[in-house]
Amino acid sequence: MNSTAVCIHLIGDPYPELMAEIAASGASLVDDPAEARGIVVSYGGRPQQLAELLAAHSGIEWVQLPSAGIEMFAAALAAHPGIRWTSAKGAYALPVAEHALALTLALLRELPERVRATSWAPATGTSLHGLRVVVVGAGGVAQEIVRLVKCFRTDVTVVRRRAEPVPGANRTVTDAELAALLPDTDVLVLAAAATPETRGIVGAAVLDALPAHAIVVNIARGALVDTDALVTALATGRIAGAALDVTDPEPLPDGHPLWREPRALITPHAADTIEMIRPLYAARVRENLTRFRAGDALDGVVDPAAGY
Amino acid sequence: MNSTAVCIHLIGDPYPELMAEIAASGASLVDDPAEARGIVVSYGGRPQQLAELLAAHSGIEWVQLPSAGIEMFAAALAAHPGIRWTSAKGAYALPVAEHALALTLALLRELPERVRATSWAPATGTSLHGLRVVVVGAGGVAQEIVRLVKCFRTDVTVVRRRAEPVPGANRTVTDAELAALLPDTDVLVLAAAATPETRGIVGAAVLDALPAHAIVVNIARGALVDTDALVTALATGRIAGAALDVTDPEPLPDGHPLWREPRALITPHAADTIEMIRPLYAARVRENLTRFRAGDALDGVVDPAAGY
Repeated sequence: MNSTAVCIHLIGDPYPELMAEIAASGASLVDDPAEARGIVVSYGGRPQQLAELLAAHSGIEWVQLPSAGIEMFAAALAAHPGIRWTSAKGAYALPVAEHALALTLALLRELPERVRATSWAPATGTSLHGLRVVVVGAGGVAQEIVRLVKCFRTDVTVVRRRAEPVPGANRTVTDAELAALLPDTDVLVLAAAATPETRGIVGAAVLDALPAHAIVVNIARGALVDTDALVTALATGRIAGAALDVTDPEPLPDGHPLWREPRALITPHAADTIEMIRPLYAARVRENLTRFRAGDALDGVVDPAAGY
Repeated sequence: MNSTAVCIHLIGDPYPELMAEIAASGASLVDDPAEARGIVVSYGGRPQQLAELLAAHSGIEWVQLPSAGIEMFAAALAAHPGIRWTSAKGAYALPVAEHALALTLALLRELPERVRATSWAPATGTSLHGLRVVVVGAGGVAQEIVRLVKCFRTDVTVVRRRAEPVPGANRTVTDAELAALLPDTDVLVLAAAATPETRGIVGAAVLDALPAHAIVVNIARGALVDTDALVTALATGRIAGAALDVTDPEPLPDGHPLWREPRALITPHAADTIEMIRPLYAARVRENLTRFRAGDALDGVVDPAAGY
């Protein structure tokens, strides 16, 4: 074994771009986990498989996870708090934020209605320019959403756990201040991690406080929205529309009322498709392998207490 | 009459924002066109009414038109080449370019299919990031489209009559070079004026030269596209999709094949609704009144020979 090499064990899909970036990082892939200091989890790597590896091999110092949300690996994290855990948080920010903007513009420009139309109609719709946008969350995706919506001369407020300012936003406030913002919100975008604090954050109270012309966009996790409350708000015209790339339950079952709600636009967790994220994850893995080898701070370090 | 005032006659809708901006400019509105040096045409001002005014009053030095395209006023322009003509070109660039981006993202993210879905589906779709975008046209709308799509790390080529570079684009080429670009084009956006040179610019030859995954977006004028050729290209899957805010004929008649073509997304000339453009036109009128009074060059000067 090369004394400067870092030995890594891989579970999940060894797709070509990932293998190329791992090779380029100078790390050595080892078949025997007993020789590995780190585990890279690729797509399809199962939580149970990871848990068994960690239980059997105490030499693992670091685990790289392939998604931004870590809910499915929560048990393994809880069982091994002494290991360094990194997720892909932030790595997929560009396509996910792009999808959030696509959904926002689609609702404002009334595209669902246009898709269903079979006849010319009066020119209606709303421009994003000058609207008041509230982004819940302050991670990589949220920061990229801020950058994109600021291209349209919007007024952007970020809502996060602590009031540390997010670059580019007009203001950053804490969760406790969300309620006061709602009556003046045109577009509410959810981009926060799923945690006990954010579960159901958009429920009846939030939906009732929004103006009737407001729209809600969720590209984070379905659990952030109280689905039943949203169904009611849409059916009664309490808000103008909702676009959901993530749902609760997910997948949204056939026959669910949201499928036939004209004010709802559902996309099947397609903000970042596997084709979009493969090269982005490969680049993140290479970056972290290089940092791990050099003893530098890793990108996407998970705070187990915070849940992301 | 105040010696420093500019007397203006208004035809069309005297909407409050316009009246406020005219008042703020220091210009004087006069009921008698014989006293006016300029005519401001607001929404609803008829070409015939303008033609009659110009025929009857030789003291008119300047006419401000309320749209970017001037086709409907072409006869009046041709009859009075000695008058200074200004259009609203560029004034509505922000909402129109925003709509072009909304349509582009909607097609790439397969939103028409999602709107029609009543069941969860595999995560598919294309990210705008890294795509090769060709923008036909180099006016205010085209420049704003370039700015917006460059927010997504795209490779942008502008096609215009002369090769003078457009800021922000990766390259600017002349119309003659369009054909060579097409095989490597992912997104073709039409943002040029309707002129004899641009009529039918997207016909069978252009559609055949595009790759099968390409999409076409038209927010300019319907006449730029050969509608029958587009219908064929979409029906045969020759290109992946088309989004049209303008059509030929317009309005698109009931029963037209584009209404039932799943690869077509039609919006009813809604890129810039009257609510969006009223304040923008009022600001343009104020700016030009101020410049006219000061003897400065006007914004949006029409080149009658070029047709825009």
